[in-house]
Amino acid sequence: MKHCGVAVVGWGTVGTGVCRMLLTKREELAQRTGADLLLRRVVDVDLERPRTFPVPAKLLSRRLEDVLDDPKVEVVAELVGGVEETYPLVLRLLEAGKHVVTANKALLATRGRELFARATGRGVAIAFEASTAGGVPIIRALAEGLVANRIESIVGVVNGTANFVLTQMARNNVSYAEALAEAQRQGYAERDPTLDVEGIDSAHKLAILARTGMGVEFDLASIPCQGISSVELCDLQYAWELGYSIKLLAVARRVGDEVELRVHPALVPRRHPLAWVDGVFNAICIRGDAVGDIVLYGQGAGEMPTASAVVADLVDMALGRAQKTFAQLAEPAEGLRLRPTTEIETQYYLRFEALDRPGTLAQIAGVLGRHDISILSVMQKEAPAESTFVPVVIVTHPAKEAWLSQAVKEIDQLGVVQGPSIWIRMEQ
Amino acid sequence: MKHCGVAVVGWGTVGTGVCRMLLTKREELAQRTGADLLLRRVVDVDLERPRTFPVPAKLLSRRLEDVLDDPKVEVVAELVGGVEETYPLVLRLLEAGKHVVTANKALLATRGRELFARATGRGVAIAFEASTAGGVPIIRALAEGLVANRIESIVGVVNGTANFVLTQMARNNVSYAEALAEAQRQGYAERDPTLDVEGIDSAHKLAILARTGMGVEFDLASIPCQGISSVELCDLQYAWELGYSIKLLAVARRVGDEVELRVHPALVPRRHPLAWVDGVFNAICIRGDAVGDIVLYGQGAGEMPTASAVVADLVDMALGRAQKTFAQLAEPAEGLRLRPTTEIETQYYLRFEALDRPGTLAQIAGVLGRHDISILSVMQKEAPAESTFVPVVIVTHPAKEAWLSQAVKEIDQLGVVQGPSIWIRMEQ
Repeated sequence: MKHCGVAVVGWGTVGTGVCRMLLTKREELAQRTGADLLLRRVVDVDLERPRTFPVPAKLLSRRLEDVLDDPKVEVVAELVGGVEETYPLVLRLLEAGKHVVTANKALLATRGRELFARATGRGVAIAFEASTAGGVPIIRALAEGLVANRIESIVGVVNGTANFVLTQMARNNVSYAEALAEAQRQGYAERDPTLDVEGIDSAHKLAILARTGMGVEFDLASIPCQGISSVELCDLQYAWELGYSIKLLAVARRVGDEVELRVHPALVPRRHPLAWVDGVFNAICIRGDAVGDIVLYGQGAGEMPTASAVVADLVDMALGRAQKTFAQLAEPAEGLRLRPTTEIETQYYLRFEALDRPGTLAQIAGVLGRHDISILSVMQKEAPAESTFVPVVIVTHPAKEAWLSQAVKEIDQLGVVQGPSIWIRMEQ
Repeated sequence: MKHCGVAVVGWGTVGTGVCRMLLTKREELAQRTGADLLLRRVVDVDLERPRTFPVPAKLLSRRLEDVLDDPKVEVVAELVGGVEETYPLVLRLLEAGKHVVTANKALLATRGRELFARATGRGVAIAFEASTAGGVPIIRALAEGLVANRIESIVGVVNGTANFVLTQMARNNVSYAEALAEAQRQGYAERDPTLDVEGIDSAHKLAILARTGMGVEFDLASIPCQGISSVELCDLQYAWELGYSIKLLAVARRVGDEVELRVHPALVPRRHPLAWVDGVFNAICIRGDAVGDIVLYGQGAGEMPTASAVVADLVDMALGRAQKTFAQLAEPAEGLRLRPTTEIETQYYLRFEALDRPGTLAQIAGVLGRHDISILSVMQKEAPAESTFVPVVIVTHPAKEAWLSQAVKEIDQLGVVQGPSIWIRMEQ
């Protein structure tokens, strides 16, 4: 039996879940895993706020030093969140020789490189299963189970809040604003939902997935990131008629020596597993050169699912497994370059509000043709009673994004459409 | 960098895939994982048969001793298959101090207990990701990623051949025999398909999953096992009308201190992820007390998907991770008992070919009622032109299997139905 002293720093929702598990399941866990995890300290600035699970007072502290100075604490679960104050905190933990388990996607996405390097320099490890897709063991899948593969693509629905909003819109035929309000009422969206609905949280997770699965290193700001706040109900409906759902996707795709990284709403064929993910669930589709397509699906957040991932990492640390897995992460070595956004090539869904008179479609099609964009299908809807504009929905064959955006700009200046027109990428 | 000598015993389809990967991707793998896997020997009784990937002649041998006696071979991939001749072979490898990576589900399901015990006694490990669901990292998920959970249930579509046959039947409205012939034409089914279509292969995988995820130990013969050869096209069609697909499921479910294990066709709601699995794909749904429902989906067989899992295990062995993971498997410790089949409680789909005259339904319902089986819905179809019998489809509320089978027996003796009547379990 391996005995391992553990501290929890950050006694919030997930921290409470981890304490609950360590304090109620210690023996069961030890028997199952061979690792005896002893909770030695719980640190938070606020020890007064009521929690859903009590921690013995003798374990509580407001001082990080009580963790740093305790040689029996080998592994620390960092569950504070945030970046500015947490980065130096994690550095202090690493410097003190503590292994760190973290659920902090923003921290890893923005400062991961420095943290992994510092950990390696200090001979300790950072494990982060809980940072992406809650309890779904996606980091292990990429770092261990699929390690024999060259990962060709990672495409995920990784933000439960955004997916809940899109699911609500599609199911109940309500606007984005109404669906968001419902998500807030049900506690799935924050009062300020920006991080979730604007794709920033998805970009953080994408950075972690791409780093773990493809060894690619990059500046977070270079991921083009578009959220769902501009998705209109009618586009969900037209997409449905065409056989597609609209999902907020995080996409990493290898193209030669380059990797395309992007976060945006996309049309996904309804027969694709990612289209089936409803509500607050997450799913990630990984394509490996040997294994083909693998999909992992589960709850992407919440106290106990996330605690499940944190405790799995604590066990891995106690047994010495995580140290072996993550030794490689300090030095992303494959030398992949980030692919410029203008080089992206997908199919596109276009919606024009077009003047309902002869020749309009010909003018639109003419501009697309001049930019070498082939049309796969056209769907013209009836004009609403009070309007002189009719929605024209066009699905294109794969086309370069640079050309597409230029073409749409030109079409918006023709005088026959009420712009700005809508274009949404499609993933097959 | 960890250097590790590897041997492959069994140069068939998967063996070829493993050789292909080790010989073409050695550097790439080493860079990515920190493990340098050197293929030192490939053993097979038949070295003449043409393979799709050549192995240098100096590595080939017909003698297992060339592996046993080579101290530089640390890990052996056993890809021979079968049980009778392979069991002593694996024992010899373990006795010689070799770690063993295997894809052999039949061997582990029938002799796993002895093999794990022998490995532990000899201080070596057995890893077996490739034994279940091909390249899908399901063993790692259970043994590591979800280790903080008490696993409540494991429900899987784990046999691609059977799933292909059922998918063909449903899609093309063909009989079992026609769909099986198509599977054989396409190379998805063996000439003797018994292992796959009768559920035996699924039972092997279920034994491995239940042992790994729940620590339960049992005699393989005690898993009730029913295949798909008796599934009729009309039942697929009626199930579809009710909102269900029929899948061959492997089910492990914890009920108190007992575990229910069973393999059989079942109705699965079409909104459930397991109903989406088409063709030769596999999917496994795991419910953990902390993580909730997780689904893993991917190709369940094939040269490269399976090789992907074998090589992942070789890396784990080289790094010393697998040894830590599987130390616990020798001693299933949770003391779970196997639940008797008669205690199983699910909903049931029943189909009676009933005489088309007043009072028949009342008689059937009367028998069900006397056995305390509640009816959820009844669907009576039109009689075929030439028949005096009409199909009556009944869906029940959850009921004990002992009562259900007794009730159906009694109904078959009423004289108003043409038995034996059909009953199929339902999983929600």
